[in-house]
Amino acid sequence: MAAAKLWKRYCENFKYYPELGLSLDISRMNFNDGYWAKIFTKCKQAFLEMDELEKGNIANPDENRMVGHYWLRNSELAPNCELKNEIDQALVEVKTFAANILSGAIKSPTGEKFKNVIYLGIGGSALGPQFIAESLRPQKPELRFFFIDNTDPDGIALTLNDLEQELARTLVVVVSKSGGTVETRNGMIEVAMAYQRRNLDFSKHAVAITSLSSKLCKIAEAGGWIKILPMWDWVGGRTSVMSPVGTLVVALLGIKLDEFLAGAKAVDIVTREHNMRTNPAMVLATMWYYAGNGKGEKDLVVLPYKDRLLLLSRYLQQLIMESLGKEFNKEGKVVNQGLAVYGNKGSTDQHAYVQQLREGVKNFFVLFVEVLEDKVELTNNTEKAVEVEAHVTSGDYLQGFMLGTRLALFEKGRESIILTLDKLNEFSVGGLIALFERAVGFYASLVNINAYHQPGVEAGKKAAGMVVEMEKILLKFFDNYDVSSKALSVEQIASEINCQKEDDFETLYKVLEHLVANGRGIERERDERKPDLVKYKRSR
Amino acid sequence: MAAAKLWKRYCENFKYYPELGLSLDISRMNFNDGYWAKIFTKCKQAFLEMDELEKGNIANPDENRMVGHYWLRNSELAPNCELKNEIDQALVEVKTFAANILSGAIKSPTGEKFKNVIYLGIGGSALGPQFIAESLRPQKPELRFFFIDNTDPDGIALTLNDLEQELARTLVVVVSKSGGTVETRNGMIEVAMAYQRRNLDFSKHAVAITSLSSKLCKIAEAGGWIKILPMWDWVGGRTSVMSPVGTLVVALLGIKLDEFLAGAKAVDIVTREHNMRTNPAMVLATMWYYAGNGKGEKDLVVLPYKDRLLLLSRYLQQLIMESLGKEFNKEGKVVNQGLAVYGNKGSTDQHAYVQQLREGVKNFFVLFVEVLEDKVELTNNTEKAVEVEAHVTSGDYLQGFMLGTRLALFEKGRESIILTLDKLNEFSVGGLIALFERAVGFYASLVNINAYHQPGVEAGKKAAGMVVEMEKILLKFFDNYDVSSKALSVEQIASEINCQKEDDFETLYKVLEHLVANGRGIERERDERKPDLVKYKRSR
Repeated sequence: MAAAKLWKRYCENFKYYPELGLSLDISRMNFNDGYWAKIFTKCKQAFLEMDELEKGNIANPDENRMVGHYWLRNSELAPNCELKNEIDQALVEVKTFAANILSGAIKSPTGEKFKNVIYLGIGGSALGPQFIAESLRPQKPELRFFFIDNTDPDGIALTLNDLEQELARTLVVVVSKSGGTVETRNGMIEVAMAYQRRNLDFSKHAVAITSLSSKLCKIAEAGGWIKILPMWDWVGGRTSVMSPVGTLVVALLGIKLDEFLAGAKAVDIVTREHNMRTNPAMVLATMWYYAGNGKGEKDLVVLPYKDRLLLLSRYLQQLIMESLGKEFNKEGKVVNQGLAVYGNKGSTDQHAYVQQLREGVKNFFVLFVEVLEDKVELTNNTEKAVEVEAHVTSGDYLQGFMLGTRLALFEKGRESIILTLDKLNEFSVGGLIALFERAVGFYASLVNINAYHQPGVEAGKKAAGMVVEMEKILLKFFDNYDVSSKALSVEQIASEINCQKEDDFETLYKVLEHLVANGRGIERERDERKPDLVKYKRSR
Repeated sequence: MAAAKLWKRYCENFKYYPELGLSLDISRMNFNDGYWAKIFTKCKQAFLEMDELEKGNIANPDENRMVGHYWLRNSELAPNCELKNEIDQALVEVKTFAANILSGAIKSPTGEKFKNVIYLGIGGSALGPQFIAESLRPQKPELRFFFIDNTDPDGIALTLNDLEQELARTLVVVVSKSGGTVETRNGMIEVAMAYQRRNLDFSKHAVAITSLSSKLCKIAEAGGWIKILPMWDWVGGRTSVMSPVGTLVVALLGIKLDEFLAGAKAVDIVTREHNMRTNPAMVLATMWYYAGNGKGEKDLVVLPYKDRLLLLSRYLQQLIMESLGKEFNKEGKVVNQGLAVYGNKGSTDQHAYVQQLREGVKNFFVLFVEVLEDKVELTNNTEKAVEVEAHVTSGDYLQGFMLGTRLALFEKGRESIILTLDKLNEFSVGGLIALFERAVGFYASLVNINAYHQPGVEAGKKAAGMVVEMEKILLKFFDNYDVSSKALSVEQIASEINCQKEDDFETLYKVLEHLVANGRGIERERDERKPDLVKYKRSR
């Protein structure tokens, strides 16, 4: 493409949104002029579906739930007064509670202010909080944040031991909408035990964010926890950042919560416009559609050129892949939809895998995220920018590397989008989240799937439950088995415990090996590690 | 597949390596019996090529370099005595230096022991150190590690401000093989400035790891830095973890460096065997080949079920994608090879994107990484495992979720491999690195590409350099431009500075906007944000 033509295409496909402090450039996606006419009807339908969704129509039929994360930043839009009041009330509670923690009106049992927070959750209850805590961390927060987001006992111990004596001044926020998420429950039990071992009263440190009818809620009520904040069934985990799940993080960081919500609200307003060429969320959705041929044929590589945005790709991985990765379309036809997302940050990733992006498999497109202003107010860095060469700053190089990579990719026919934020702050990060939430909603309409359920997650959970049940049976079996009896092979054990289901021998073997490795009363007869030959017996 | 058949397949395709404490299971990759015969000749060739490589034959013809990372853990194999001595000598130096830092024989200028380390590098000089520092962190390291791995001035300021008064007790390790990596140089300048602002002598905190003829080496020599450790041109950045780049991290963490190297050496020995069915590195390579049809048609999703291994996927992303993402094969034919890698950790990711893995686009296969022993010695956790239900631990659930997810994926025809470590420690992590290094080397032979260069990285760097040059010209132009003169459009400025190359208008616009946003003496005439209409003038 000649220079003049490229420049013309750039000017036509670059749009700045003054009310958002955000611009979007899709000039290096190689769609042609006919593309918009082709996708027009789909976009129109997507706009209508989104309007219906926001009005509170049931959009998650599997679970018979409304989808209401848009109301969280503008409660006026909630479909009725009760919901509006609940949203407003929760926000007041979050603000008051956080202010009390920060001021010391609510003190730790030592009589001193709380100094640390453990946020305990997984998936939608962890990634949003982590992304906020990293992207919007002020230089000297009153509270240090720690996250426990898995059921790995070593990972939990590592975090707890890091805190050690400080546990007495640590707030523990347990986040689970259903209150039944096993990883979170396990983490909670492990943390509560650590408090108990130190003769500390866990309930005086504990906060729950959960549905008001959940098991977790009942535990918190019965235990007299410091605070219970609500989660609602009309907010999905992956879109829960503007509910107490995320707003509590913002408030405890002591940064501008109203700005965070205002940024999202402002994006919502702009992205309600029924114009596929100018609505930035629809522009993103149409570009994803174009890139992957409406079938997710290309991965989305997210490259923010800003250290604070490192977790954006992980956040989007969840938001996008869990929403769009679906087997069936709305009519029940098998479609195997989705859009794979990965990436870390630039220019760091240029020294990792940009080699493959430029030269290798052409199975991706890039979303560059740029921040025009190098300094971030939250960092409270008052120094003048350092010149690394005469007149040149590190920030100039950061931009240079981004533009250079974009050019290098374009030369080889690799497509990219640039999303530019004027500044990185509470407003723009809130906006970023809202922008992608709506882009995902639009894209789901374009490909005719339900973005708001996650049926595929259940199967793994169920299977995991069965594995744990099998483990209990095995433990009981060996507990009753005579120490001096003959060692048994996997197949013999299977027969003894009446286990014949497909896959079960293998699972049995894996579970036995795990029990042996952890000194759980079972040992190998010899150090034989062949699944069909190894024999197990009760440890003496 | 019937239960009996699956179990048989499992037993046949499961292999334990006693000398490594590692097992590999490829039973749920759906290759058929004929696959091995088909790939036999390629594997044979790959074994021969690897033998040649290890003997020191030039394997990176672009750069006329040998590839010698295998010698780092077994210097006996180095092709000559000089190299052997250099390797041995460097290891002694690393150990002695780290011991002196840890003992306080080398003190910080305050007269106290060093307390923190900033590791300053990017790509191969950062990801390995980060992966080690996270996966092998002892519970109470003498030194806390911080990483600066980008040219983002805000990210650098955030880290430096976190350290603040502690800079006086902070060691700064600058890692750059060539000594010319701009991001690292910028970071070094910013850090040195921070020391200067606090009236601290940077050179009394600074350590260089670099080629002994590099620019960085000269700076370090001239400045009288505390220590200079060698990097060699026969070690690629992405395989440099066993050179001082990584061994210094291990040594400064105060953990078992010899075990770390021994783990890698043990894997090297096992993976030199010319048997495609039992050599675990070749087994991995053949499975990648099978999954992606030898063309990288499927992404590799890396799911370690262990918090400490969170960065494994990022480490592998670099190692695999930079090595395998190539435009040309060895004969110069365009092949656009590669293998895209992403993932974080289980079971956390089950609540993020496993929905898509089970139901969505079938464009991936999974590598599960499991650790049989739940406790990690490095954590120094002496507590008995907590029971989260009667007889069940968090670790049981962790395994349950992994096996459950594997089953759930298999039900839907999604393939996976399980790599199991008996324990997570210095030996096994060293081994893991060596295993993947060799798998990558084998795979490159299978698809007939050079794994040891990265020609695609240069283009982006060069283009970035041009962007920064353009910025300098712009700054100079406006510096000489009369404040009261007319504001100029992008096209007018282009013409004034004689810039006509393709793409340049767009780059010019982007650079101008960045300069405006950062108060660099240029402003917009009005707050116009349309690239073809906006006009710029010198700030008063």
